[in-house]
Amino acid sequence: MCPQAQPFLLRVVKRGHKNIGMKINFWSAISNSFPKDFCSRDAQILETYGRDWTTVFDPKPSAVVFPRQTDEVASFLKLCLSFGVAVVPSGGRTGLAGGAVAKNGEIVVSLERMNKVGSVDTMAQTVRVQAGAVTQAVHEHCMQAGLTWPVDFASKGSSQIGGNIATNAGGVRVIKYGSTRNWVLGLQIVTMAGDIFELNGSLEKNNTGVDLKQLFIGSEGTLGIITEATLKLTTALVERDVFFFALKDTPAVLRLFYEARKAPIELHAFEMFTDGCLDAVIKIMALKPPFVESAGKAYVLMEIKKDGQGVEEWLAGLFKDGLIMNGIMAQSEREARDLWALRENIAESLYRTAFLHKNDIAVPVADLDGFVSEMEDMFRKHYAKLDLYFFGHIGDGNLHINTLKPSNLNKDDFLLACHETDKDLFSLVQKFKGSVSAEHGIGLLKKDSLHYSRSAVEMEIMRKIKKVFDPQGLMNPGKIFD
Amino acid sequence: MCPQAQPFLLRVVKRGHKNIGMKINFWSAISNSFPKDFCSRDAQILETYGRDWTTVFDPKPSAVVFPRQTDEVASFLKLCLSFGVAVVPSGGRTGLAGGAVAKNGEIVVSLERMNKVGSVDTMAQTVRVQAGAVTQAVHEHCMQAGLTWPVDFASKGSSQIGGNIATNAGGVRVIKYGSTRNWVLGLQIVTMAGDIFELNGSLEKNNTGVDLKQLFIGSEGTLGIITEATLKLTTALVERDVFFFALKDTPAVLRLFYEARKAPIELHAFEMFTDGCLDAVIKIMALKPPFVESAGKAYVLMEIKKDGQGVEEWLAGLFKDGLIMNGIMAQSEREARDLWALRENIAESLYRTAFLHKNDIAVPVADLDGFVSEMEDMFRKHYAKLDLYFFGHIGDGNLHINTLKPSNLNKDDFLLACHETDKDLFSLVQKFKGSVSAEHGIGLLKKDSLHYSRSAVEMEIMRKIKKVFDPQGLMNPGKIFD
Repeated sequence: MCPQAQPFLLRVVKRGHKNIGMKINFWSAISNSFPKDFCSRDAQILETYGRDWTTVFDPKPSAVVFPRQTDEVASFLKLCLSFGVAVVPSGGRTGLAGGAVAKNGEIVVSLERMNKVGSVDTMAQTVRVQAGAVTQAVHEHCMQAGLTWPVDFASKGSSQIGGNIATNAGGVRVIKYGSTRNWVLGLQIVTMAGDIFELNGSLEKNNTGVDLKQLFIGSEGTLGIITEATLKLTTALVERDVFFFALKDTPAVLRLFYEARKAPIELHAFEMFTDGCLDAVIKIMALKPPFVESAGKAYVLMEIKKDGQGVEEWLAGLFKDGLIMNGIMAQSEREARDLWALRENIAESLYRTAFLHKNDIAVPVADLDGFVSEMEDMFRKHYAKLDLYFFGHIGDGNLHINTLKPSNLNKDDFLLACHETDKDLFSLVQKFKGSVSAEHGIGLLKKDSLHYSRSAVEMEIMRKIKKVFDPQGLMNPGKIFD
Repeated sequence: MCPQAQPFLLRVVKRGHKNIGMKINFWSAISNSFPKDFCSRDAQILETYGRDWTTVFDPKPSAVVFPRQTDEVASFLKLCLSFGVAVVPSGGRTGLAGGAVAKNGEIVVSLERMNKVGSVDTMAQTVRVQAGAVTQAVHEHCMQAGLTWPVDFASKGSSQIGGNIATNAGGVRVIKYGSTRNWVLGLQIVTMAGDIFELNGSLEKNNTGVDLKQLFIGSEGTLGIITEATLKLTTALVERDVFFFALKDTPAVLRLFYEARKAPIELHAFEMFTDGCLDAVIKIMALKPPFVESAGKAYVLMEIKKDGQGVEEWLAGLFKDGLIMNGIMAQSEREARDLWALRENIAESLYRTAFLHKNDIAVPVADLDGFVSEMEDMFRKHYAKLDLYFFGHIGDGNLHINTLKPSNLNKDDFLLACHETDKDLFSLVQKFKGSVSAEHGIGLLKKDSLHYSRSAVEMEIMRKIKKVFDPQGLMNPGKIFD
């Protein structure tokens, strides 16, 4: 229960006649209208729920509320609107752009108690879930019916479906399945006005005007709160072959990808990482190296549908041509998981290796080669003092570019240098018509760089659309743009 | 070249200081600023380009313009805005909801001269096309590279890519590939203000705020004109097995679909039609019946990926159980095409059988059984005088419901009866949380029924979004809503 304190953001908004003279304290209204455990202002709770995995912002929420049902979300938002109180929707808080950070006295709306997962509809291949359901729990639930929600990424054990949708999560199998957007049939949304939208229900086809649910997918909680979703499922992948290849350099990775596109295989993942990334993950996680010795400068993890027809022959040709220097294929599910561990632990390993600066960019797939070449040149020429580590989803044109602070550089100088590299890097991204945030979103962290990927007129339209749903700017304010 | 006549819609809009006193005639401005053959007011041209395949509206455009490039579209729209002249974007005019009909003196903007198709990027599996490219031409172009744009439907020989996107076209392989939305990476859009938007380029991943291109997909030309698109491609399906089954009734179709969902097969299409539809197509198109004799009341065309493992055994079990009364499998590509012809010619055959009234609805897949049962009951009890024919895409919950005018009923009485059935039918659709327009869109034809599928608050938001892009309401006015 919230103590009777003044919220940081409490401000009077313009009210109609009916509300003139209304003096009910906001906190009293919460106490009177919601269950005892609905709202918390406990310091530890504020600290925990006020942030996401982004570490650069200090959390400072006024309170955290934990609704149990959509109606509560609606009543609460209505109350906030009437008092002019800002809110931050919050899922599993695994975001990397500060999209769920409350740093200005907002009230965090945690969806974690709304975590019900409905029964799987095997005929329609759908499942209805509440927004707070944990991604991995949904995976496990669907797997019992032989189906899967094929959005898959390293933080799935903590992330929640609502957050996945609000950030249009990508991950490691986008090349086969596409991003979250492709796997959402319907959304239930609550807007700041307390309106509950049921958008598209469980319909596969519905061409009745603008598909409003698309606006919320990837909007980072700035337009409304996702409370429920109907997810589209697909047959679970049971049989797969996982390969791990050592290659001479990054251009060779691109050549291998091009060959794979033409080969008689069904690609499910095609992930690359530099030798530095592999070294870090092996060292920090104490994992077994995939090769006894390797002169490779770049590595590829490739997952394909088990089939067998022509794969060996195709690979033999690539070995013979020297494109693949070394390669192994997982001989069991256990070995497949071990190979995947080398990929999935990179982010955490780099994080534990040194203070780092992250970027998550994308360029058109066909331009990856040119982009990487210019990027490596740029770092070599102008930022040789920084350690460059990158890995990513080649099939999506998506690279996670990390610069690690060398031990001989102090943190301030490092951050200053990163600030400079970002300008150059994003200019390069812009030159290739790329994205300054492929998967992570903009949140608080990338606001200043949005203009590299979106034109002024696009940004103006985004602001106007925000106003349509949230004219007073109380829904996750300051995210994506000010 | 346009004669110097007054357009029907010419009206003065509020202008800033700079434009005060501007008296240049609109048609003169066109003559002065665009090529000679840019604009036509020829009666036959107006008649042809003023309508789509919907037959219930009389075309009455002021003129038709034929831009050759995006800049021309932009200059023209700017000119129209300054004169307050309304426009109707126009593609292959195969729409079935009047979305491309110009019936109030609007100027039709035909994209047909903007039909360039770029070279296929086999690495990224994309192709850049202008909006006026014909769907089938794009298919054939991509096929040369072993790739396909998997949006496939009967009118592909006339329809254009821009129109497919503006209506989020579905078709016969949605169960495998999804609708058009899934196969568009980037869009170039020109708004009424003459702004050119490059939305998302060729990026597979780009989480930088709201994905504005999604707004245009399915917006039926009400927000802006699509001038170019980057299409996402996939490996062309080369090996398929096509089956044709006779079944006892519609519930049996649903049971077969449910079995197919669980079977070890990859479904690419699962199309059903009633016996009346099959009889019509065989008679009108003089096609060979699939079975020498059949007591079936419902038929299914099923296409799966050729595989062979377990399919025969699975089907043998269904024959033995009596679910499938009769069935054949195409033994050659020619036979596969012949079976598909039975499905793809239904719409035209019914059209040529009698005057008809069409509906295109969807319900959640899991509710198809209940819906069909109630719908058949409804027609039996209240509309026995009407002949009911339906067919559709079972995997998408999408049925095309046709009522044909019996010969003993005059047209006016028939239309009156259809008006009544629509109310009952749409109420039933609403009860099942379905869509009054699964594929065809709303256009002019279904405006009055939009409320069965979209709530008042959704419709209000759609109006506001329209205003963001087109505050004066000049872009395809009166479509979707007034």
